[in-house]
Amino acid sequence: MSDGKAAWVAVDWGTSNLRAWVLGAGGEVLATSRAPAGMNSLDPDGFEPALLDLLGPWLGSERLPVIACGMVGAKQGWHEAPYAAVPCAPPALAQAVRPRVRDRRLDVRILPGVSQLSPPDVMRGEETQIAGYLRSDPDFDGVFCLPGTHSKWVHVSAGEIVSFRTFMTGELFDLLARQSVLRHSVSQEDGWDDAAFLSSVDDMMSNPQRLAARLFGLRAGALLEGTDPARLRARLSGLLLGMEIAGARDYWLGRDIMLIGAPTLTARYRTALQAQGAAVRETDGADIVLAGLSAAYAEASA
Amino acid sequence: MSDGKAAWVAVDWGTSNLRAWVLGAGGEVLATSRAPAGMNSLDPDGFEPALLDLLGPWLGSERLPVIACGMVGAKQGWHEAPYAAVPCAPPALAQAVRPRVRDRRLDVRILPGVSQLSPPDVMRGEETQIAGYLRSDPDFDGVFCLPGTHSKWVHVSAGEIVSFRTFMTGELFDLLARQSVLRHSVSQEDGWDDAAFLSSVDDMMSNPQRLAARLFGLRAGALLEGTDPARLRARLSGLLLGMEIAGARDYWLGRDIMLIGAPTLTARYRTALQAQGAAVRETDGADIVLAGLSAAYAEASA
Repeated sequence: MSDGKAAWVAVDWGTSNLRAWVLGAGGEVLATSRAPAGMNSLDPDGFEPALLDLLGPWLGSERLPVIACGMVGAKQGWHEAPYAAVPCAPPALAQAVRPRVRDRRLDVRILPGVSQLSPPDVMRGEETQIAGYLRSDPDFDGVFCLPGTHSKWVHVSAGEIVSFRTFMTGELFDLLARQSVLRHSVSQEDGWDDAAFLSSVDDMMSNPQRLAARLFGLRAGALLEGTDPARLRARLSGLLLGMEIAGARDYWLGRDIMLIGAPTLTARYRTALQAQGAAVRETDGADIVLAGLSAAYAEASA
Repeated sequence: MSDGKAAWVAVDWGTSNLRAWVLGAGGEVLATSRAPAGMNSLDPDGFEPALLDLLGPWLGSERLPVIACGMVGAKQGWHEAPYAAVPCAPPALAQAVRPRVRDRRLDVRILPGVSQLSPPDVMRGEETQIAGYLRSDPDFDGVFCLPGTHSKWVHVSAGEIVSFRTFMTGELFDLLARQSVLRHSVSQEDGWDDAAFLSSVDDMMSNPQRLAARLFGLRAGALLEGTDPARLRARLSGLLLGMEIAGARDYWLGRDIMLIGAPTLTARYRTALQAQGAAVRETDGADIVLAGLSAAYAEASA
């Protein structure tokens, strides 16, 4: 906590978590907080109390602007923020929706996500990370890769999101490592083996149709050869990530690639993509959402 | 129940269930029973009581032969029955193991599964179904497909299992339909749409590397277009099954294909394979295990 006066609040409100930054008039971060109060754990009536819990000490007599992005704007969220459709720039504050709030000290706006009709696809939150990145590199022309539960590959040109493709890679990894027959064989911790990872990536680049067989092969390898659980974890990651990189090839081939996300995760994508001869850069995702929300706030005050 | 005298008992003892047939001296089925007493729910000490529960009324003064196959012979089962390695005929009774039993009225033998070293793979139970099929068609030369939680493709020639490949297709389907983000969109019942199924199969035959993107596309289709949950269930099935058929192409291409399994499931594989121009026949899996266990019993009495 700080003694400064809050000018506004940035909120990244996802499926599982809520992250908030309290900012001063000069853009300085006065406080940050994080709570497990994601969309999945809240009724529509629960969003305002969750926000008040977090912001209580910062509320004064004036209305405090709050700008949020993410699943908070989904149909099952606080208030639906209709998608902007590609091709489009990352949505601006003018497109935000205002949920009803009871406490008059709050002035909440939720930024829309982005949709694509053919093939059907949606994002909520990643568009704001992209807006954050573009703030410091507005002429970026290439593809963003945002790895995660639902990894996104996003083609951006002339400040617009042209098209994108979502892969369920992270969710598949979690289901397989924790809930499938592989849970007996794959390390539940962070063991790793670079060579096993890369050979599995290569395998999927050449034979993606073998995925379901290779998955069972991890179990069989453990039974017949006693393969090390950490190595199997790296193989599982390599199979799924290799499949994604193969399936996104038309996105990244011949384009600049900017990875945005948690450094341990983007490092794996970088390693795999560089092995395919791709040109890759990385940006730590931690503060890039804040940059995007700040860009929206700057519009409001401009 | 019947008044006949039990000559022996056949048991298909899997991960989740136990199925038993009580047979008379002439091979006639005197009784059948099924219990949810699979390997996953039993300690090593629990197998004998589970069997006694089922067979109590049939036990007399003489020792009753019991021949079992399946996960009962796994390391975590009753007593490990070491794998026979390919190339090999489906294991015979001479290769069976005898678990220790306390009740002297039981004479239990467990048939081994089959393993493959490169690439590593294992089966327990399917080899006995194949033995059952070969009893009536000993010269079969081609490939068996046994769809299920872990689908098997098995190349058989001159009475031997030459090689095989397991796909985690059924387990992936269950995880995705019931526990992933798709559970909100995909029908949990038996809705179906043949055209959607076949177009998803085709899609994966051409672009297997897109799997994780197509999976998320099911969710996005539901959100943006309100796609019917039954159609999405057929699409999910088509994606996973198409991927398996693409990954097994070197097994089935130019070979006779015999599908063994539950008729609703084998019908889907038949439809998908015929659309690829493959020659397919089907055998109902219900009694084929019994035929395989009977072949083993016949050896004993020969």
